[in-house]
Amino acid sequence: MEMKEIKSINEAVVNISEKNVTGKPVLPEEVEAEALKKHIGDTVRIHGSIYKIRKMSGFAFVLLRTKQEIVQCVYSEEFSDFPLESLIQESCVVLTAEVVPEERARDGYELRIKEAEILSVPEEPSPVVIGQKKVDASLEKLLDYRPVTLRNERERAIFRIQAGLCAGFRKYLVREKFTEIHTPKIVAAGAEGGANIFHLDYFGKKAYLAQSPQFYKQMMVGVFERVFEIAPVFRAEKHDTSRHLNEYTSVDFEMGYIRSFEEIMQMETGMIAGALAYLKENFGRELELLKVKVPEVKSIPAIRFAEAKEWIAKAYNRSIRDMEDFEPEEEKLLCDLVKKKTGSEFVFVTHYPSHKRPFYAMDDRENPEETSSFDLLFRGLEVTTGGQRIHNFAEQIEKMRKRGMNVQDFESYLMAHKHGLPPHGGLGLGLERFTARLLEMENVRQATLFPRDISRVIP
Amino acid sequence: MEMKEIKSINEAVVNISEKNVTGKPVLPEEVEAEALKKHIGDTVRIHGSIYKIRKMSGFAFVLLRTKQEIVQCVYSEEFSDFPLESLIQESCVVLTAEVVPEERARDGYELRIKEAEILSVPEEPSPVVIGQKKVDASLEKLLDYRPVTLRNERERAIFRIQAGLCAGFRKYLVREKFTEIHTPKIVAAGAEGGANIFHLDYFGKKAYLAQSPQFYKQMMVGVFERVFEIAPVFRAEKHDTSRHLNEYTSVDFEMGYIRSFEEIMQMETGMIAGALAYLKENFGRELELLKVKVPEVKSIPAIRFAEAKEWIAKAYNRSIRDMEDFEPEEEKLLCDLVKKKTGSEFVFVTHYPSHKRPFYAMDDRENPEETSSFDLLFRGLEVTTGGQRIHNFAEQIEKMRKRGMNVQDFESYLMAHKHGLPPHGGLGLGLERFTARLLEMENVRQATLFPRDISRVIP
Repeated sequence: MEMKEIKSINEAVVNISEKNVTGKPVLPEEVEAEALKKHIGDTVRIHGSIYKIRKMSGFAFVLLRTKQEIVQCVYSEEFSDFPLESLIQESCVVLTAEVVPEERARDGYELRIKEAEILSVPEEPSPVVIGQKKVDASLEKLLDYRPVTLRNERERAIFRIQAGLCAGFRKYLVREKFTEIHTPKIVAAGAEGGANIFHLDYFGKKAYLAQSPQFYKQMMVGVFERVFEIAPVFRAEKHDTSRHLNEYTSVDFEMGYIRSFEEIMQMETGMIAGALAYLKENFGRELELLKVKVPEVKSIPAIRFAEAKEWIAKAYNRSIRDMEDFEPEEEKLLCDLVKKKTGSEFVFVTHYPSHKRPFYAMDDRENPEETSSFDLLFRGLEVTTGGQRIHNFAEQIEKMRKRGMNVQDFESYLMAHKHGLPPHGGLGLGLERFTARLLEMENVRQATLFPRDISRVIP
Repeated sequence: MEMKEIKSINEAVVNISEKNVTGKPVLPEEVEAEALKKHIGDTVRIHGSIYKIRKMSGFAFVLLRTKQEIVQCVYSEEFSDFPLESLIQESCVVLTAEVVPEERARDGYELRIKEAEILSVPEEPSPVVIGQKKVDASLEKLLDYRPVTLRNERERAIFRIQAGLCAGFRKYLVREKFTEIHTPKIVAAGAEGGANIFHLDYFGKKAYLAQSPQFYKQMMVGVFERVFEIAPVFRAEKHDTSRHLNEYTSVDFEMGYIRSFEEIMQMETGMIAGALAYLKENFGRELELLKVKVPEVKSIPAIRFAEAKEWIAKAYNRSIRDMEDFEPEEEKLLCDLVKKKTGSEFVFVTHYPSHKRPFYAMDDRENPEETSSFDLLFRGLEVTTGGQRIHNFAEQIEKMRKRGMNVQDFESYLMAHKHGLPPHGGLGLGLERFTARLLEMENVRQATLFPRDISRVIP
């Protein structure tokens, strides 16, 4: 190859600047909202969407929605060199403005708009009013117009907090030496069994959408000892309730070399405490905006399932209709009782009946009718299911045979057991449910960016 | 409710210890492999799997596989109080051992095993030898026996590095004020169009698996300005090549208020530089083990697509068969040329032909035959596709109509445009491809935990 031949072409190669490698903002001439307080007295450029315009006599308040906060600006013919009419709600703009002290403003300053560069103008006004404190719309409308309604300051704060929770969970788990994994969502067999599984045409073959990363995370305990994954899971449940979703984000971890399933509960206690501390440290503005009461978590009480049932029945003089499971109302009553007794807004319920738990659950060594398993309830709702798993090959095969399962269908899963697995266990936490309970929302859909339920796949 | 009635039951409530809240290890009496060097001279307890046993005359080397590293231990009747036969490969054990200085050992010490507690014993020996430096097996066998073959030190290091890349990408993006989002994978319309989409039965209605989070991340630019997601995407492509997967992990970001698509390339340059620096800082052991040559990234050269085609043709005296796209061989040749000319192992290719790009791609303002778009090639392979998107409602509608698309099908997506979006763009980076090129692996499947291709859904 002759390099000189291509000399002229070589000029076509230009270098992409390394500005960003050194962490400088992409548009250095514009300031971030968080930096405004350092610019009092300066004239700055700042970009965002026009969130709301409030006309007063002789001037107007213009609220600018930036990445993370709403900035109060003032328009006045005195200092603004353009007509107010050129500012339209949901236009994207770059404002040139002076930062002036103003003690009545929330942040102690406001921006006096001098010039406005209009980057884009909406085709039509929003179908829902979003610039008020709360979006005044039914849940259905709120979800139908998600691309618009999420622009509301409070609506989007929900998902800033959700992002913070994920970051907090990950930070804790990485510190505890968990390895992040990415397991397939297209699978040949469901982990939870039953009919609640979505079918897929996979190049003419049968396949399913993963109900959980259960099999894969167990296999990976044999590799990394401790693993986690935060990823979508799919449940074809026909329940149409305020707490069910057909697709949700599952925070899963699995850990090896445990001596008892209580260690999993200890790890979760730490993970939740760690994430809530992370939120307080990094998302104070959003927590304040939504007036979130962040629970104190130092330890979480635990109660056996059977005893919890009995306790609820006695305390509320109720008859026990279903000895195998909680009714949703009972989860609420139990949380009330525990809060009164201990102050905790979380409670672990342990030792669920064996035949209500999946085939991989380890039975209690003293009472095989019960499993070494737990749920975590938070403010009246189950947010986690976890437990110790069977690690011994023969024991696992036997439990599967007793349940009439075809062992051959699970050959690659059982390969992990056959060739050695440590005692282990783990859990799955529903991110949207956890967010909804933290924010004390009625419906889990409010804490889901684009919820999927039996009647909703759009938007 | 009478609280005293339930006094006796109250004893059932036990507190889960806060051990973990304060970050102490779950099993405080056992040490982590990384802490061993602080324990020279001590007798410690440590858990792991028996990775390999090498019998010598009068003693045996026993390699213990722990979470993150392999620890060299020595068995000898002199100091071990049990028969060597009780140690079996892939048994999970807790060893009690003395940490003694040994200058011939890699870490300067070795563990003299005193006692061994056997936690689990495999049912059968591994079907593939995993305790050697490399697993000696075909790619097919390597993948068929994933739960076992990943236990090999080098195999698992690939995925430790992949986890490190994700953590590095996220760290950079969060610092640049991107908000993490979770978008649905069950969707009503595909973003990339075409036949390459998986069909799903969603409660009797038609639905699909998301080919990318494209629509949702664009909608979210109107909400958060900058968003990212690292999540699975699904492509029903029938290609069975060394670089295609039917399910992969996509690192997606989207950013608003850009002045040109070059800003997206700057952001990616920073993100990659940041992630590689993070790897070097935190995964030195794994990088060394796999002898990874981590590229230096300060800036990345860029070349226009048409000029790149011409350059390759001239340099290698090839005829151009397809003016619209690269052949895989051309991607390799271009990377070779760029490396020779500039030293860079990355190259951006810009201004792809308009009709080869999706309907949401923004056309170049000076030449509508080309788009304001780019691919990133890394060591001969495309690892990213990105570009500026159309933000104006009327312009987007017009482009869709010209392509004969039914605008009604995209109503909720276009809602974002209709009600105001800033100029914006973003990209998707294939995590497995990036990992494979970083590790200079022939096949992207080697860098995929459980690959999905046209003939593989198991394990």
